[in-house]
Amino acid sequence: MKISILGASGYVGGELLRLLLDHPHVSVEQVTSERLAGKRVTTAHPNLRGRTTLCFSRLADLTPCDLLFAALPHGSFAETFNEVQSVAPRIIDMSADFRLRSANAYETWYGREHTDPPALGKFVYGLPELHRTEITNASYVTGTGCLATAAILGLLPLFREGVVSQHEVFIEAKVGSSAAGNKESASSHHPERSGAVRSFQPTGHRHTGEIVQELSLNGSPTVHLSATAIEMVRGILITAHLRLTEDLDTKAVWNLYRTTYRDEPFVRIVKDRHGVFRYPEPKILVGSNYCDVGFERDAHSDRLVVLAALDNLMKGAAGNGVQAMNIMAGWDERAGLSFSGLHPI
Amino acid sequence: MKISILGASGYVGGELLRLLLDHPHVSVEQVTSERLAGKRVTTAHPNLRGRTTLCFSRLADLTPCDLLFAALPHGSFAETFNEVQSVAPRIIDMSADFRLRSANAYETWYGREHTDPPALGKFVYGLPELHRTEITNASYVTGTGCLATAAILGLLPLFREGVVSQHEVFIEAKVGSSAAGNKESASSHHPERSGAVRSFQPTGHRHTGEIVQELSLNGSPTVHLSATAIEMVRGILITAHLRLTEDLDTKAVWNLYRTTYRDEPFVRIVKDRHGVFRYPEPKILVGSNYCDVGFERDAHSDRLVVLAALDNLMKGAAGNGVQAMNIMAGWDERAGLSFSGLHPI
Amino acid sequence: MKISILGASGYVGGELLRLLLDHPHVSVEQVTSERLAGKRVTTAHPNLRGRTTLCFSRLADLTPCDLLFAALPHGSFAETFNEVQSVAPRIIDMSADFRLRSANAYETWYGREHTDPPALGKFVYGLPELHRTEITNASYVTGTGCLATAAILGLLPLFREGVVSQHEVFIEAKVGSSAAGNKESASSHHPERSGAVRSFQPTGHRHTGEIVQELSLNGSPTVHLSATAIEMVRGILITAHLRLTEDLDTKAVWNLYRTTYRDEPFVRIVKDRHGVFRYPEPKILVGSNYCDVGFERDAHSDRLVVLAALDNLMKGAAGNGVQAMNIMAGWDERAGLSFSGLHPI
Amino acid sequence: MKISILGASGYVGGELLRLLLDHPHVSVEQVTSERLAGKRVTTAHPNLRGRTTLCFSRLADLTPCDLLFAALPHGSFAETFNEVQSVAPRIIDMSADFRLRSANAYETWYGREHTDPPALGKFVYGLPELHRTEITNASYVTGTGCLATAAILGLLPLFREGVVSQHEVFIEAKVGSSAAGNKESASSHHPERSGAVRSFQPTGHRHTGEIVQELSLNGSPTVHLSATAIEMVRGILITAHLRLTEDLDTKAVWNLYRTTYRDEPFVRIVKDRHGVFRYPEPKILVGSNYCDVGFERDAHSDRLVVLAALDNLMKGAAGNGVQAMNIMAGWDERAGLSFSGLHPI
Repeated sequence: MKISILGASGYVGGELLRLLLDHPHVSVEQVTSERLAGKRVTTAHPNLRGRTTLCFSRLADLTPCDLLFAALPHGSFAETFNEVQSVAPRIIDMSADFRLRSANAYETWYGREHTDPPALGKFVYGLPELHRTEITNASYVTGTGCLATAAILGLLPLFREGVVSQHEVFIEAKVGSSAAGNKESASSHHPERSGAVRSFQPTGHRHTGEIVQELSLNGSPTVHLSATAIEMVRGILITAHLRLTEDLDTKAVWNLYRTTYRDEPFVRIVKDRHGVFRYPEPKILVGSNYCDVGFERDAHSDRLVVLAALDNLMKGAAGNGVQAMNIMAGWDERAGLSFSGLHPI
Repeated sequence: MKISILGASGYVGGELLRLLLDHPHVSVEQVTSERLAGKRVTTAHPNLRGRTTLCFSRLADLTPCDLLFAALPHGSFAETFNEVQSVAPRIIDMSADFRLRSANAYETWYGREHTDPPALGKFVYGLPELHRTEITNASYVTGTGCLATAAILGLLPLFREGVVSQHEVFIEAKVGSSAAGNKESASSHHPERSGAVRSFQPTGHRHTGEIVQELSLNGSPTVHLSATAIEMVRGILITAHLRLTEDLDTKAVWNLYRTTYRDEPFVRIVKDRHGVFRYPEPKILVGSNYCDVGFERDAHSDRLVVLAALDNLMKGAAGNGVQAMNIMAGWDERAGLSFSGLHPI
Repeated sequence: MKISILGASGYVGGELLRLLLDHPHVSVEQVTSERLAGKRVTTAHPNLRGRTTLCFSRLADLTPCDLLFAALPHGSFAETFNEVQSVAPRIIDMSADFRLRSANAYETWYGREHTDPPALGKFVYGLPELHRTEITNASYVTGTGCLATAAILGLLPLFREGVVSQHEVFIEAKVGSSAAGNKESASSHHPERSGAVRSFQPTGHRHTGEIVQELSLNGSPTVHLSATAIEMVRGILITAHLRLTEDLDTKAVWNLYRTTYRDEPFVRIVKDRHGVFRYPEPKILVGSNYCDVGFERDAHSDRLVVLAALDNLMKGAAGNGVQAMNIMAGWDERAGLSFSGLHPI
Repeated sequence: MKISILGASGYVGGELLRLLLDHPHVSVEQVTSERLAGKRVTTAHPNLRGRTTLCFSRLADLTPCDLLFAALPHGSFAETFNEVQSVAPRIIDMSADFRLRSANAYETWYGREHTDPPALGKFVYGLPELHRTEITNASYVTGTGCLATAAILGLLPLFREGVVSQHEVFIEAKVGSSAAGNKESASSHHPERSGAVRSFQPTGHRHTGEIVQELSLNGSPTVHLSATAIEMVRGILITAHLRLTEDLDTKAVWNLYRTTYRDEPFVRIVKDRHGVFRYPEPKILVGSNYCDVGFERDAHSDRLVVLAALDNLMKGAAGNGVQAMNIMAGWDERAGLSFSGLHPI
């Protein structure tokens, strides 16, 4: 299968390229970057030295392929979508442009009108754990927000079962610096960003819209999301607090998770009584496509604390995109995604 | 004024020593460590090279002084208290042993009976912002938990005013590694701890008891606390979520904070519209005695997000202890605590 | 091919296990740990959750296999060697016990007599770039020191060609914390180790012996090695300074490197004029088996500065061991070692 | 004494401001920034919140003062020098513009002609340990390069005594990110810079010129300098290798250091047999004005390894500048510089 990547100079594009170069069933045809057109991809992605001699192309020079990944900046893909539909029958868009099904929700969370509301209905929200069947048959699939993916996978068993009191959840997300992209800024300057514990989005985080949309399984949830940037390059940990509608003990909650994720290749339930890594931690997921989920029942109240960790560039972006591609193509979902993560790291 | 420090080989003891050596009104007489008795204090505290020739003494060799700081491990001081009362008329205990006024609460949060319940009533909870007058007249003062201090100072204006819906708050604390003390363990081993985002106490954190006690100003609060260890040596940031009982706008909330902290020398309200450091961040508080507090109103709901940052060894321990000492002695509260913190760091 | 790992609870053992579980041509039979016997390997290696149900065995329970990896602590394997020869016809030992061919050199650098001098001659120094043919035919192969591997590969083209003035080189090695193993200590305690720039071995580093042995290609070299622990978990960068015997320009030096490494699958020459990653950097090699080498000619003198980077647990240990195994078995050297490393990380 | 700071929005300017605000003998009159003119200094230096209400002025609005600190970018001050001489009778320039006494040396290391060669002779190289008397009487003093300061102080006792074989030394400097200033760039972007071990200047580092100049005490030294950026915001460690002309043992070398630095308030000799911090480490010097120096004799050769650590913004810049000011004013050299550094950090 011939694949091209639109917007391959950024972090998500680079990860897509890395994964696809080692993928057993695909060949990478073209990768675009207007800024770096004509230059070797290793200029932007030095880890690929010795692995490829590909150079960046321009969007205008794209030739037809079987599947197109788009990793353009948010807002850009919506404007390019019409233009590139002729390039490939299948498109997986990693941007935020078509994740929300409702133009109103888009305006609420993105603060501007959507430029192509009718196209919103053409895309499937590309989270296999929720939409595997639709992805199988889809022409157009969107990536998922990195925070949203962690939050949704962490909370899915509970919202599916309807055991969250008042459908209300408070989510605190700890986020690494790569989630903000590869463009330098005053706040990403190393002396300023190093060691930061920075409340960059205490309220109003855009991924709230995705979480609300995908967890509306038993009524509309109230999602309170805050995001804090911490000292980490890759990784997300969400800590979610909710009250249970009934007195489920640890075993009962475990069973909900087990039922939901028993057959999922990339979701692991992590909850150990001993050891250093008792709960989900993004550190040992760097480079892997796992989302680790776990929880703890509060013995002093009816609170449940839910934890979910992932690598924002993998299960939170490129890895999940490749998983969706595998599903669309009918391959083993794990193809090209076998890296287990490292310990120590 | 002659000061001695009981248990001076740990991190809190070391910070007390550092602060007291440079304090304009005191002299450090003795510092104890059973393990390092006879050795120079610079063995444990290399930053003090060239600043002092003090050596560690044994507890048994303590001579009378004007004020005794105790920085023994939690649980040890309660057993030593009777023994050391003859050493000094005034004692400031940095351990957790006498912070709670109720033996029941102690048992709830520490999982064992208190060994000396009658003595609980003899200590003042040493947070100047809440108990300045009592500290002035106290013989025995306790330190305050590092997380608890951040949470209490962050939430005080709201609980004092009674504007927290159902007195309920969800607190997520991000914590540096020094908060766990200076004893190595499997989980503090650098390859395991570096880059960690570790839910070491999703529920059941002991400081919950202190927060409940000190915020019981308009009824008993429900405090949901989770604590996450992150890549940082010194520092705490708490992110607290609550719903407001009435529709207070940003200015109204600001006024509550301003009213409470206008004259406090070590609490700053941090809430900027622009810039990199718009909200409280522990990074620029390292070594300082400030607790920076801030908040953000959620435009999509009635939620208020509260942020509070401090250096766990300073305002969260030794610095706050020295502030309490200054109050007890009638000195300027800021004596010996003038370091502003660094930027960049 | 059936493989077992002796001493699999440590960091090198864990990496061997991770690599072998995903290796296309082998099956892992047994992995030993006396301390963790009977427990799942994921107790020690949490990144392998969901990848294996293996449990640790005892050494005494080892059954015959085709090849045995030994990852015991330095000093232990030499005492176990006789015992385990019956387990497998081929052994790759990751410890330092049999790296030096001379018992005298061992005593010089390890400060004690070797316990089994005759066995020293039975092992091949397992660096493929120097000893590929011998490895092919060997029964017993030793791993290589992580610092030594970086230094040798960085300097090999120059010592082979004999262009190093007085055969003398000054090497400064920057090392991550995982190189010291998985046992906690006062100096590995996170608050002490985090952010450290620690001259843990300014002189007398044991790997000096290996470097001298392997670079004795045109006379005996004088190797001045210092090692500094820096903030990093995995990774080594060596910076080596030497004077050239003749006025070789950049292109001439490049040609020496090119000649030596043209066909090496795991050595890349990195020397760019522009970009962020112009020279070898361990950061983007985490998890990969590459050793990146580079150099810069000093325009103000006859000095050449040589740089070499690798992941100490991969090309500096387990990865190199698997590469050696591939050679011994006649497989593609790259089997099981295809991970390219990540960017960003 | 009235002080103004020219170019106070950068990291060095910010540190000068912080130190001078707490200095017992001075008042800060004006601080300039063209870019931030009219804005509060806390915009650029958030650690100073609550400490000052100063706003930035323009250079054109500078009024006369007693002493002017200049912290302009390299190259800018030389062009401003004539203009600002009327502002203050004494100037301390933190830039590199007037550190070298020779216009030829400037051209060699800076790659361009000096714009005001005659003025080079008007400045004293502001290192108290070498030029205390000249500083006392100087009108114009220059700051010192951060790497150069560490290298010079580490090596001074040896070059003064003339015991360095062939006057030749190989210096490897490990440097934190703040040394590159407060302007963001592709290489300072956190995901790229975090965890880096980056050979940003393997040869040709500008500070070489200063080191050569100041160590020309017994002939002209040959200084081979390489610089590596590591994961650290503040701090420098230099590791220098040299061969001794005679067989000095540890005690003899110690005596050379002791003789040179016995009475220096900001140089400590650090060389312990036990403990975690046996040698100089920048980690515990953050915020302090110390330069810690140490060494180790190589038991296998005639090599001596010299280590020197400092905080690049303190003893490597602003702190050293304030020390020079104290000398010029006849105050205690330690005034305003009493902060000891923190442990842990």
